[in-house]
Amino acid sequence: MPRSHGSDIDTLIQLLAKLPGLGPRSARRAVLQLLKKKDSVMVPLANALDDVADRVRICATCGNIDTSDPCHVCIDNRRDRTTICVVEDVADLWALDRSETFKGLYHVLGGTLSALDGVGPDELNIAPLIARVERGDVQEVILALNATVDGQTTSHYLAERLADTGLDMRITALAHGVPVGGELDYLDDGTLAAALKARGSVA
Amino acid sequence: MPRSHGSDIDTLIQLLAKLPGLGPRSARRAVLQLLKKKDSVMVPLANALDDVADRVRICATCGNIDTSDPCHVCIDNRRDRTTICVVEDVADLWALDRSETFKGLYHVLGGTLSALDGVGPDELNIAPLIARVERGDVQEVILALNATVDGQTTSHYLAERLADTGLDMRITALAHGVPVGGELDYLDDGTLAAALKARGSVA
Repeated sequence: MPRSHGSDIDTLIQLLAKLPGLGPRSARRAVLQLLKKKDSVMVPLANALDDVADRVRICATCGNIDTSDPCHVCIDNRRDRTTICVVEDVADLWALDRSETFKGLYHVLGGTLSALDGVGPDELNIAPLIARVERGDVQEVILALNATVDGQTTSHYLAERLADTGLDMRITALAHGVPVGGELDYLDDGTLAAALKARGSVA
Repeated sequence: MPRSHGSDIDTLIQLLAKLPGLGPRSARRAVLQLLKKKDSVMVPLANALDDVADRVRICATCGNIDTSDPCHVCIDNRRDRTTICVVEDVADLWALDRSETFKGLYHVLGGTLSALDGVGPDELNIAPLIARVERGDVQEVILALNATVDGQTTSHYLAERLADTGLDMRITALAHGVPVGGELDYLDDGTLAAALKARGSVA
């Protein structure tokens, strides 16, 4: 088979194609861009990867992925240490934090309970959450799991486990409703029903 | 502003977002994937980038981008050295070579003539093409430029320049027609007209 470039370039294409959002075709375009912009993109990217790969770790407190442990959230003294927001995945933590509404701490479960996939409470980061709460000072736990069946099942399970501690704290969940910018016509019945039930006065 | 992760991770996201096909959102997802698969993806990717960045060069003969000069095409002895296929960009060279139909050599112009953008013949890799042809042994030059106005203008210009050398060779261009798998209903009139004009016997 004729080859238009070296196998090292093929290796690079195959590695980039493993990233979400990039297939073989777009990985090839990306590599060509990297090769053309060697000094402004390729070398800085290689350095940034080396740099971060050396220092990436999982925060022992909350489960966030960061280049320091404790992570940037857990060491931030301006944050409210009495509120813990429980999320399924690190991606959810980053997303919630970008909204700049929540100033408390997080706890990453690492997934949801799932009988089908054989994921029980012991497979998730639940025991450390209970331990964090029992260490005291927590006034509210926000259950910010996905609004899927597995997410909500896990949410109910966590609410019970937290209530069982007998500690005096609020256990809350994200509100359901119409997404900002969303059109009613495109929303499912469940969301519309929830938005109606949770309607609030505006005047 | 609260930060959920280190600024080194932000740097990585911003660098990845510069690649074609990746925006800020998908770059973030890609970085999270890299962080989670440090040993299987991130470290190999960093190494592959380092490795290729050290050795990337432009082939002095044909203009291909590769990790060796002359490139893998130009040093391949099984290739037909009497045929040169002229393309606009390295991406086109790679694409044609993947089709495994052409076994000759290539010549990358690096763009097209464009009065609007101030690109004249001197800005393109044209003089070296004429020099390659004049060195002898070339029996056919295939003009495989894009079927755009600029591409076709450049193609005509090259055909004239090559004819002016007075050398005995064929100057050809890619056929126009219906793309394989394409539906007539979705094709433009120009393509349909070209496909009709160039129709061939099948029985």
